[in-house]
This record gives sequence, C-alpha cells and structure tokens, in this order.
Amino acid sequence: MTLSTQVRLARRPEGEPTDDSFAFVEHELPPLQDGQVLLRVVYLSLDPYMRGRMSDAPSYADPVELDHVMVGGTVCVVEESRHPEWAVGDLALSYSGWQTHDISDGTGLRRLDPSVVPVSTALGVLGMPGFTAYAGLLEIGKPQPGETVVVAAATGPVGSAVGQIARLKGARAVGIAGGAEKRRALLEEFGFDVALDHRSPTFAEDLKAAVPDGIDVYFENVGGPVAREVFKRMNLYGRVPVCGLVANYNATSAPEGRDRQPAFMSLILTKSLTIRGFIQNEFTKSHGRDFVREMSGWVADGSVRYREDVSEGLESAAEAFRGMLTGRNFGKALVRVSPDPTL
Amino acid sequence: MTLSTQVRLARRPEGEPTDDSFAFVEHELPPLQDGQVLLRVVYLSLDPYMRGRMSDAPSYADPVELDHVMVGGTVCVVEESRHPEWAVGDLALSYSGWQTHDISDGTGLRRLDPSVVPVSTALGVLGMPGFTAYAGLLEIGKPQPGETVVVAAATGPVGSAVGQIARLKGARAVGIAGGAEKRRALLEEFGFDVALDHRSPTFAEDLKAAVPDGIDVYFENVGGPVAREVFKRMNLYGRVPVCGLVANYNATSAPEGRDRQPAFMSLILTKSLTIRGFIQNEFTKSHGRDFVREMSGWVADGSVRYREDVSEGLESAAEAFRGMLTGRNFGKALVRVSPDPTL
Repeated sequence: MTLSTQVRLARRPEGEPTDDSFAFVEHELPPLQDGQVLLRVVYLSLDPYMRGRMSDAPSYADPVELDHVMVGGTVCVVEESRHPEWAVGDLALSYSGWQTHDISDGTGLRRLDPSVVPVSTALGVLGMPGFTAYAGLLEIGKPQPGETVVVAAATGPVGSAVGQIARLKGARAVGIAGGAEKRRALLEEFGFDVALDHRSPTFAEDLKAAVPDGIDVYFENVGGPVAREVFKRMNLYGRVPVCGLVANYNATSAPEGRDRQPAFMSLILTKSLTIRGFIQNEFTKSHGRDFVREMSGWVADGSVRYREDVSEGLESAAEAFRGMLTGRNFGKALVRVSPDPTL
Repeated sequence: MTLSTQVRLARRPEGEPTDDSFAFVEHELPPLQDGQVLLRVVYLSLDPYMRGRMSDAPSYADPVELDHVMVGGTVCVVEESRHPEWAVGDLALSYSGWQTHDISDGTGLRRLDPSVVPVSTALGVLGMPGFTAYAGLLEIGKPQPGETVVVAAATGPVGSAVGQIARLKGARAVGIAGGAEKRRALLEEFGFDVALDHRSPTFAEDLKAAVPDGIDVYFENVGGPVAREVFKRMNLYGRVPVCGLVANYNATSAPEGRDRQPAFMSLILTKSLTIRGFIQNEFTKSHGRDFVREMSGWVADGSVRYREDVSEGLESAAEAFRGMLTGRNFGKALVRVSPDPTL
C-alpha cells in the first residue's frame, strides 16, 4: 500500500494564496493494476498559470476543483511497473501535480533520458516554459536581425529563453528583472544586451535610454506598470506575444486611476501593433518538433543557458509558489519532492 | 487669376470641433506653370481620420498645421491644363483637401473613368474606405465560412463593405448601427444577417442573442461601449482588425470608472485573441491590385452595394464632419463642392 502526500486546493484564494488555500492530505493509492505504473514524483514544476487554475473565473482551462490535487508538471521515477513499456527506475515527464506519488496507465507519460541533459530541464528550458518562449517569440514576435526585443521576468524560465533565442536570431535583447543580482545574471549568465531593474526609481528613463531605436517585440509575461512603460516605446508594426500577466494574477480589484483601455486601443491603432494572446499548446503540432531539435541543440552546445530555483520538499511548495508569483524566485521554480536518482 | 475658397484649421479643437476650429479663406492661386493643371474640386471626402489630424497628439500621420488647409481626398475636374497627360474636363482622384480649387503637377493624381461607376465611389467603396474594409477584413480578420463577423458603424463606407465582403466569403455578418432606419438598411440594402441598434436599451442582450456561436472577427472602427459589449463575446482565437475608434476621437478625458486595461489584457490572453491596428496604406502593395479587381467586380454586379450621404457646398463641410463623428451621417460622407460634370 502506497500513501501519496497530496497538496489539495482547500479554498479559492482572494489575492495572494495563503497557507489556508492548500490542504495536505495523505491519500492511499489503490493497488496497481495490469498496465499501470506507480510513479514517485522527483520534481514538481511551479508555474504562474497555476494561479489561474485556483480561481473559478472563466479561462482557457478549467479550474482545479476544490479538494482536488493541485495540477502541475512533474518529473517522476517509476517505482513499480505492471506496464510492458515501463521498467522500474525509468524516468518520465508526467502531469502528476502537487503530490509525492501517482498511478498512471502510461497516457501522457514521456520518457526522459538522463544521459543527455538533467531531467529537470523537461520542466523548464526544454519543457513547457521553453516552448512558450520559443513558439511565442518566433511565431508571433517574429524578431528580425537588428530589431529590439524586450522581455520582463527575464531571469525566469520563459524570459531567459526569450532573450537568448532573440539574440540567436540576430535581435537585440533587453531584459527586465527585479534587483541588482538578477540584473547581473541577465548580462553575465544569459547574455542580454541590456539589463534593467524595474525596481529602480529611474526605471522609465533607463528603459528609454536602453531602446534608442524603440521596441519591435515585447514578449508580455508580466503586465502591470512595467508593461505600461514598455508600451510607450513600441515601434510601428510592433508585435506583442501575450503569454502571461503575472502582475495581475493576485489582483483583487482594478488598479487605481483612470481607464487606460481607450488610450491602449489608440496606441494599437496609431502604431499598427499586433497584440496576440497565446497558450503554448496551440503551437505543439506546428512547432513542437522544431523546438525539441533546435532547443536541445542550443542547450547542449551552451548557446542557451538556464537557471533553476529548487525548493526542497513538497511542504515548501506553497511558499515557493507565492514567491514565484511575486518574483522572489531566481530561475525556473521547481520543488524537489524526492531525491533525484540521476544526481 | 483663380481664387480657391479654403477651409483652414484655425485652432485645435478640445473635444468636438466647433465652427471656431475652422476658418474660411479666399486664397489666390498663382498663375499656372508648364506641367501643371488647375483642378476644380467636385467631391470632398469626409473621414474620421481627419479628426486625428486636427490634434497634435503623436499619431501615424503628422497633424495639419494651424492655418493650413484641412486635408482630404477629393474628386476633381481639370479646368485648365499645361500638363501633357491631362486635358480639360478630365476627372481625377486627388488629395486636394477642403477647398474649391487646387494646382497640381500631376503627382498623386489618379485618372477616373466616369463611364464605369460614379466617380464619387473613388472616395468610398472603391477608394480608401473600401480598401480599409477589404484589406483589414481579409488580411487580419481572415473570416472563414460559417464564422461570425461583427462590425459597428455598419452603414458607413467601411462597415457596410466589411459586412458584405464577409458574406461573400461565406461568413455570417452582424451589423451594428444607430437607429431603426439604419438597422433596416443593414438588412435590406446591405444584406447583413443580423442588424442591431446600439441605442437600444437591450443592446447587450440583443448582441448576445445575435451571436449564439460567439464572435470570430470583430472589425473595430468605433471603440467605446459598443466595443466593450462585443469583446465579451469573442471566441477563442478571435481576430480584431483595429482601423478606427471614432467613439474616442472627440474625447477630452478618460471615461468614468475603473481601469479596464488589465481585464482587457486578460481577455486577450485567455481567448488567444489577435488585436491588430492598421492603416490601409500598409496593404496597398500587397492587396491594392486584388482590391481594384475584386471590388470593382462586386460593385459592378451588385454584390457589394454602397450608400452616400452628400452635403452641398464647402460651407456645409464642418457641420457634416461633426455629424459623421457622432454617427449622424447615413452612408459615405461626401461634400459636393461644385457640380458633378458627369451627372
């Protein structure tokens, strides 16, 4: 008999999720059937979209139901197998959510090879966040050589990939992040051309100085005041892939001040901007194969680097999740739920 | 010696243009030089974009300078010619603006053939407004058979063309206009599938009932409260060509109420919408030829109909312009500046 420790959605948060939003439950898994595998979760991915799933506002995906396990991508190791294609010790990408163990009939599992790259990258640079950056930037942003690409939350798994891919395509990459340490990482680790600290009191002027030729592509993953400054500098025919708005996710009311919507529409009109929302899975069929090939190559040869921010133990997930929503993480937010057998 | 009566920009309006915004001036034209033609303006086009040119806010085009002639498309007849390619009596599309006479060296003149269609159509359905509808709808809106296309100001030259082209492409056309008479024209003259009166107290419910399958394309030319209702009904992957925001043009301050911008961005994200501002001339090279061919055919065979709202005399231009900005026109707004020699 296996117990899975689960983090379930206890109540829908108003604003920032609190400890009360989650409940820890010891759940007894049923005995393994023929065709099933027992998975032990090694890494749990923490991603901004999860905040949306905690709310029951209409969205592109159904909310997590109350008293159900929080959803999430995971890297697992097979602990027991009655499935012909999976052996004990195999590593798999799965969508097991916030828990320590899971049973699967193999549907949706993807085999991971720990000899090529660390398996945790399947949740980051070579997984959903990396693909979000790749597809959104190339298909919607379409950066041209010499153009200026701006991205915020730029040390995060999406932002850092956006900047590095932009540079690989010959564009100039301007990264925005919070604090001097992240700013330094943008320049030294990720090779951005310019790095800006959005917490600086001179951020607006810094941004203006950083984009003397204006902004051609703004990869939108934050929203809020940072986005407002960026939009002022958009060039004619600028493109804005909208993949996230993390600044809004915990918001409980509209921001102070006047209605900025009419001015925003005027900007779209006078600058002939393209604003395009997307979820990465729209592009899986059209770009998934290219992504795996190109991005694996870039990671392998070091032209795309990544950074992980690993919290230890499932009990750290809620706090790490809150931190990620407010930018306290530094790199791809992961929870090491149990020891990584490949390390 | 020829006098041109000119309407000049006397002061930049705050809100709706007043009579004080314009000045009538008798301007003495210089003697005709070799290579020049003297044009008598027959029709002046009144278009919403002109309101933007009266302001000095940054935009896609430079503002009209104070004490300069108001800009505008015109149909002219050649009154005198020292140009080898133009003869007295020839008809030309020009950009002579709000005045009775103009001198041209032929640059930018397009010959009009009155034997095919009325020359005034060069300012409407077969001119800039028609091309705006054609290029914006087909290139950005991309309506598919069976999809639902919504357009407001739908009896205007852009809106009526959008609805009719949408139907020619197999889509369902929902038109929005102000008042029962315009609503009737949408159904009876222009063949929209559904016509809605935005002044009706039940407009929101009427719209909901009119689009049981949601909205795939919203051709944005009005903005304001109408657009807000439409956006609520957008489908996943909906497309919004933004060609105008006439509801905002006279606005002197942001509308009452909370900031709708964050919710708008969330909608773009959760519905994977494409919002794309454009000015028709972006598409002249790529779509101009197709437009002339297809649209001339449709007008000639009656599959695209048009309606004109003609004011008499240049002295009526200011009042007619104000009326157009608030929807009092009924069809393409034109000023007959002098008698049409082809009638």
